[in-house]
Amino acid sequence: MGAMIEDTSDSALQRLAQQIGESARLNHHMLVTAESCTGGWIAKTLTDIAGSSAWFECGLVAYSYEAKQALLSVRPQTLEQFGAVSRETVIEMVSGALANTGATIAVAVTGIAGPGGGTDDKPVGTVWIAWKRRNGYPRAEVFHFDGDREAVRRHSVAAALRGMQALTA
Amino acid sequence: MGAMIEDTSDSALQRLAQQIGESARLNHHMLVTAESCTGGWIAKTLTDIAGSSAWFECGLVAYSYEAKQALLSVRPQTLEQFGAVSRETVIEMVSGALANTGATIAVAVTGIAGPGGGTDDKPVGTVWIAWKRRNGYPRAEVFHFDGDREAVRRHSVAAALRGMQALTA
Repeated sequence: MGAMIEDTSDSALQRLAQQIGESARLNHHMLVTAESCTGGWIAKTLTDIAGSSAWFECGLVAYSYEAKQALLSVRPQTLEQFGAVSRETVIEMVSGALANTGATIAVAVTGIAGPGGGTDDKPVGTVWIAWKRRNGYPRAEVFHFDGDREAVRRHSVAAALRGMQALTA
Repeated sequence: MGAMIEDTSDSALQRLAQQIGESARLNHHMLVTAESCTGGWIAKTLTDIAGSSAWFECGLVAYSYEAKQALLSVRPQTLEQFGAVSRETVIEMVSGALANTGATIAVAVTGIAGPGGGTDDKPVGTVWIAWKRRNGYPRAEVFHFDGDREAVRRHSVAAALRGMQALTA
């Protein structure tokens, strides 16, 4: 992420979640999270906030191909053709999260946290994140995070929350 | 929880997750988590483990009544009659998690983490947890945890993982 110096400490994540919650409450948003490599960490961080039931609808942690298809309506041919870590898959994830729930804002994350699973094309640390409002277009971004599994996951959570902060404001 | 002294530090949770992962992998179990008050923390802790995709199927964070119905097939009349924090609801959650996914072992958690939401009948800290193997009977247990939101959630995660450890072994 270039020269940006980013605080991804637990307390920084908490502050982001707090701000997202305040904006979501004020603007009557209901949030859904669709997580692969972050494995529920985004949902956990958002629901750390007292009163989050007012604006957090649900979280879907879809680790397997089957779960991505069943919970998020990702098409098998998308997974086959582009892989689970791709723009195409993350956009289907974020769209499916909204289609399958009553939420109004969604975030989706799919990436390779490591230590295994990396390839030349998609090394460990490659993470796709997408955000979408119910009636808006999805936005998707690819990140390349350094560090171990914990660091890649932590940076993914922070990036997902920052995008959500912009979308709820 | 009586006189038991329990280690619920992050590293204790990590060790539990590691043991669950090893047992699940050896015994070819696939896990699903159905979380309300813990909000994804159990899924996060399990997927902290490298290689968890071999035994972690998916996680469902069902915060709202609607999500409990849609994701976990909890019946509206169960929620109405017994409330979201009850033996009846947690058993429907754990059964629904298995019915709606390809997993073979499920854990479900629903409770009042606070600071709001407590009643005389069900004060803050009341947490129902259920576990079930695909072809087994569900087991449900109620806990009364002391402390703030963070403490109630942390103890809930630890209790859920300990039950899961027994079930995967």
